[in-house]
Amino acid sequence: MSERLIYMPLGGAGEIGMNAYVYGYGQPGKERLIVVDLGVTFGDMDGSPGIDLIMADVAWLEENRDRIEGIFITHGHEDHVGAVGLLWSRLRAPIHCRRFTGALAAMKMDEAGQPSDVIRIHAPRPEVINAGPFQVQFVPISHSIPESAALIIDTPAGRVVHSGDFKLDGTPVVGEPFDPQVWHQIAQEKGIKALACDSTNIFSPHPGRSEALLAEPLAAFIKAQPNLVVTTTFASNVARLKTLAEAATAAGRKVCLLGRAMRKMVTAAVETGVLTDFPAVIGSDEAAELPRNQVMLIVTGSQGERRAATAQLARGRYLGLSLKEGDSFLFSSRTIPGNERGVIRIMNALSEKGVDVFDADDGFYHVSGHANRPDIEAVHDLLRPGIVIPMHGEHMHLRAHAKLAAEKGIASVVATNGTMVDLTGDRPVVVEHVETGRTYLDGNVLIGAMDGIVRDRIRMALNGHAMVSIIIDENDAPLPDAWVETMGLPERGRAGVPLVDHVESELADFLTRADDRLIGNDDKLEEAIRKITRQVSMEEIGKKPEVTVVISRLAAD
Amino acid sequence: MSERLIYMPLGGAGEIGMNAYVYGYGQPGKERLIVVDLGVTFGDMDGSPGIDLIMADVAWLEENRDRIEGIFITHGHEDHVGAVGLLWSRLRAPIHCRRFTGALAAMKMDEAGQPSDVIRIHAPRPEVINAGPFQVQFVPISHSIPESAALIIDTPAGRVVHSGDFKLDGTPVVGEPFDPQVWHQIAQEKGIKALACDSTNIFSPHPGRSEALLAEPLAAFIKAQPNLVVTTTFASNVARLKTLAEAATAAGRKVCLLGRAMRKMVTAAVETGVLTDFPAVIGSDEAAELPRNQVMLIVTGSQGERRAATAQLARGRYLGLSLKEGDSFLFSSRTIPGNERGVIRIMNALSEKGVDVFDADDGFYHVSGHANRPDIEAVHDLLRPGIVIPMHGEHMHLRAHAKLAAEKGIASVVATNGTMVDLTGDRPVVVEHVETGRTYLDGNVLIGAMDGIVRDRIRMALNGHAMVSIIIDENDAPLPDAWVETMGLPERGRAGVPLVDHVESELADFLTRADDRLIGNDDKLEEAIRKITRQVSMEEIGKKPEVTVVISRLAAD
Repeated sequence: MSERLIYMPLGGAGEIGMNAYVYGYGQPGKERLIVVDLGVTFGDMDGSPGIDLIMADVAWLEENRDRIEGIFITHGHEDHVGAVGLLWSRLRAPIHCRRFTGALAAMKMDEAGQPSDVIRIHAPRPEVINAGPFQVQFVPISHSIPESAALIIDTPAGRVVHSGDFKLDGTPVVGEPFDPQVWHQIAQEKGIKALACDSTNIFSPHPGRSEALLAEPLAAFIKAQPNLVVTTTFASNVARLKTLAEAATAAGRKVCLLGRAMRKMVTAAVETGVLTDFPAVIGSDEAAELPRNQVMLIVTGSQGERRAATAQLARGRYLGLSLKEGDSFLFSSRTIPGNERGVIRIMNALSEKGVDVFDADDGFYHVSGHANRPDIEAVHDLLRPGIVIPMHGEHMHLRAHAKLAAEKGIASVVATNGTMVDLTGDRPVVVEHVETGRTYLDGNVLIGAMDGIVRDRIRMALNGHAMVSIIIDENDAPLPDAWVETMGLPERGRAGVPLVDHVESELADFLTRADDRLIGNDDKLEEAIRKITRQVSMEEIGKKPEVTVVISRLAAD
Repeated sequence: MSERLIYMPLGGAGEIGMNAYVYGYGQPGKERLIVVDLGVTFGDMDGSPGIDLIMADVAWLEENRDRIEGIFITHGHEDHVGAVGLLWSRLRAPIHCRRFTGALAAMKMDEAGQPSDVIRIHAPRPEVINAGPFQVQFVPISHSIPESAALIIDTPAGRVVHSGDFKLDGTPVVGEPFDPQVWHQIAQEKGIKALACDSTNIFSPHPGRSEALLAEPLAAFIKAQPNLVVTTTFASNVARLKTLAEAATAAGRKVCLLGRAMRKMVTAAVETGVLTDFPAVIGSDEAAELPRNQVMLIVTGSQGERRAATAQLARGRYLGLSLKEGDSFLFSSRTIPGNERGVIRIMNALSEKGVDVFDADDGFYHVSGHANRPDIEAVHDLLRPGIVIPMHGEHMHLRAHAKLAAEKGIASVVATNGTMVDLTGDRPVVVEHVETGRTYLDGNVLIGAMDGIVRDRIRMALNGHAMVSIIIDENDAPLPDAWVETMGLPERGRAGVPLVDHVESELADFLTRADDRLIGNDDKLEEAIRKITRQVSMEEIGKKPEVTVVISRLAAD
């Protein structure tokens, strides 16, 4: 059978987050594989209560572990590197990345108790990494974290470009500018067979703006504030941290960084040499003692995270610092959809303290890290790929991106997680759908999204939970006193008596009447008890709770 | 003691939703009262899982029920009328409103099994309603539902205007236009002592736009679509329904209304005479049979509600209709903060069906029903009130509105729920803070937000739930077999053995060793069992679950 080049997303195509992409080359079913990115996304109360991190289900990769030549990480954002520590033991292939990304990946490996010496640090193009049939190069590209890279993936079937996350920024403040000459040359060397391309901002109609454009408005803003200024953004947006710190310095203020993630990121950036000339920072002690109009705090928690510095400052004191009437708080970030309520809650808490809150909605204090629609078009034009594969987007993003490609006469395909696409010919061909899904980190256990655990939590949250305990004596006769406890249910309902009393009395009636066959059958008895409990609850309080039944059978002495 | 005029919000001042305001006049503590609006807001998984409706806690009003002269409802939106049925039996005062609002209020009363004959229907100004020391007039004002009214509340201490929800729309398509002449006259008749004023859009810097401006862009949009067109908006936005239906008719399409709320609202609007000349509509059967490019559906569910028509169409068939590749879906509405994830989920589901989704972000297909900042300023200028009381807003809205008033030299106060303000003098004076909060409708029971019921549900959702059942025999000795069941927890943890086995074995050890004093004390025994269960779980799975312990003591024969 002839060899083929395949592409398959396991995460990131059908959502924004938890990126994980697979490329393969070889005979069908025997392709040698590389993995691009292993990221996470975050749980939420709506769909995954109690879940800290969500990542792609890598069961298919694990089954084919002996075929994996390497794992390539494009950049250090959580949605690209966050799962390496948690998933590596299932894949056990070398991890390839650039230096700064490597420092962050090493932290992830350490935290998960995995060996960080499997991480190989590479220089960008022209260095070529050989991985089975693939020759891979990291190509610097501008994004909102230093040392972001696109990948050139050369295969016997042609050259593939995997864009990673990117924007077209000629003056990105930190990190390498986007260089059209380099990309022109890459396309000249060899025609681009396929471009797998970031779709995040496909719905943003105007060309993206440079990070450098923020310096002046931010300095003017900070200068205009009468008291303490606090700003928040993503800790990983090292360029923004620098822009903010320099603006504060220009406005005659000392800068204090608050929040563990912030300090970790800046340390990693300084140590790996990607961040230079960062203004001197002061500690929280000194910040608390200086006059308020001489200080600016840069803090974590722009997305409303409950334990981050922003939330703590909104609630009260944090490391000896607290906010007061007349202070100013700037969100130099966009609120990710789904986080609005948490962010609004914090904004109102700040307002209650008399703090003036400013957001980035007007565009003066924030620019996106992703290419907008015209920028994406420009990259299509620059690379002239045979095929465009939209990635890094929800379904509607991928679909809009594929339509854009089609309008330009470029072959395209909407391939969501688990869709295997054959790229060997001139047009992409879907050849297989692999069973895929999500893996949750719950406490310190990895569980499947469909295991029913989270479904049960959601049900308890919506319906409450009733526990019924009954005892069958040594003679196989039920004791009539059923014991009912509830959690998350109103104490009293329509009848005015306690709900548990009412259920217990109905169950006592039932147990007294029940025949031996039913009493002897755990499953049927449990089902009958559950049904009565739900029915009585429905009548009393208008809700059917989840019910757990414990039947204890006393052994004859 | 001299008499005074007081204002106190119980809901709606500190959030957008569940409006409930109180005015009083008389000797302190003996003021005669009127209530303005009794609305609801909706629960969400984050803060109130399993809760259908949320309303103001009216305990204070209930205690002072004999002082209530009447309940005035400004308009028929859920956040103003939604709680009348649920709360009326606690207040038992006559309900005053205009005809259309009254029709909606009557439905609420019926649904809650309350008498709808306590509803008094009034004509707008110049009709005056006497309510103790108050003379109240309904003044037509433009908003996104017909027969919206502001209230003129004349008191011995002067004239108060309660704006209700409003925008300045001279051509509102349905309902009465905003008439500056009328308001000029109202201010001329008597100086305005205080204006309690809608703050929803205080952060929108540009003047609001008229409903009538949507007709052309909507007709052009509909005309341009090749297949079936579906649009969604709030059912209560009767003007928008008309705008949409007329645009569809202009584009040569038949209109079909889907969703119970939509049909209910249109029926009420037609029956009360507020809606005339609505284009003829067809049923879903006929809609399914006509060519797709000759039909437009107007459907419920613009906020992503799971059971509404939009969500059902996104999932599959609804009343024999289903969506296909090339159909178009327009959200002619704004997504309320907090609903983003649900709306995005539906947009992606539509995208998967090949449906082109359009939202109202660009402003061509939606206008807000609330006054923007310049409009609010215009009303300040028109009425020249002595005091501005910002209402209908989160804390940050109220604060920004109060600042705006202060900049114009108008006395103002940020009064959140439970804050009693004395309006008798030239400046507002906070005189009392009344204990207040939120009441939840849970199933068919009203519970307090702070009762701990919902807190327990959230904890079960985050932490899972373990149930432990132990039995103490006739001789006060524990049976060593503790029985553990879990819900919402991973089955196995670090050690690889089932979590429940591990907990049961640790509990058996404990019960064997426990001394008689501990075994004899339910509270201490329960606490010890809970602690062991949480500890073992933490070691095994990295989570501390909620624990319910059931101790059954066998009686000696």
